[in-house]
Amino acid sequence: MKTKAVFYHAGCPVCVAAEQNVAAALDPARFDVEVVHLGTAKARLAEAEQAGVKSVPALVIGGQAYHINFGAGVEALR
Amino acid sequence: MKTKAVFYHAGCPVCVAAEQNVAAALDPARFDVEVVHLGTAKARLAEAEQAGVKSVPALVIGGQAYHINFGAGVEALR
Repeated sequence: MKTKAVFYHAGCPVCVAAEQNVAAALDPARFDVEVVHLGTAKARLAEAEQAGVKSVPALVIGGQAYHINFGAGVEALR
Repeated sequence: MKTKAVFYHAGCPVCVAAEQNVAAALDPARFDVEVVHLGTAKARLAEAEQAGVKSVPALVIGGQAYHINFGAGVEALR
């Protein structure tokens, strides 16, 4: 079974670069990668915060949050 | 040809988690991943800084630096 990976972003340039170069670099044989734009999908904010996401872009793999560089704080997306 | 990816770390817990969950998640069909411990391989510090690495753990993919969470600043590794 593949591991779920969620890439949270907000459409910012830092986010787009991380999406194209990190999220897209994950092994598709092992990971199901979902890309979530928290600026438009605000209903997913609670889930992201629960996984430990403090800023975007962030990649949650197997429930662990990895913040990749810094685009914006989650509090700015409410 | 595979893209070169270098994961720089310093052996810290934040680094180890990122190595196991992000660096190891990259697609081996597309990336050659090298893992560099900057605490022991200090000769690689200049190269890491030139790639834009400010803190570890960091992943440099195709010459672009992505800082993953925060373990230690590069200046602490000199």
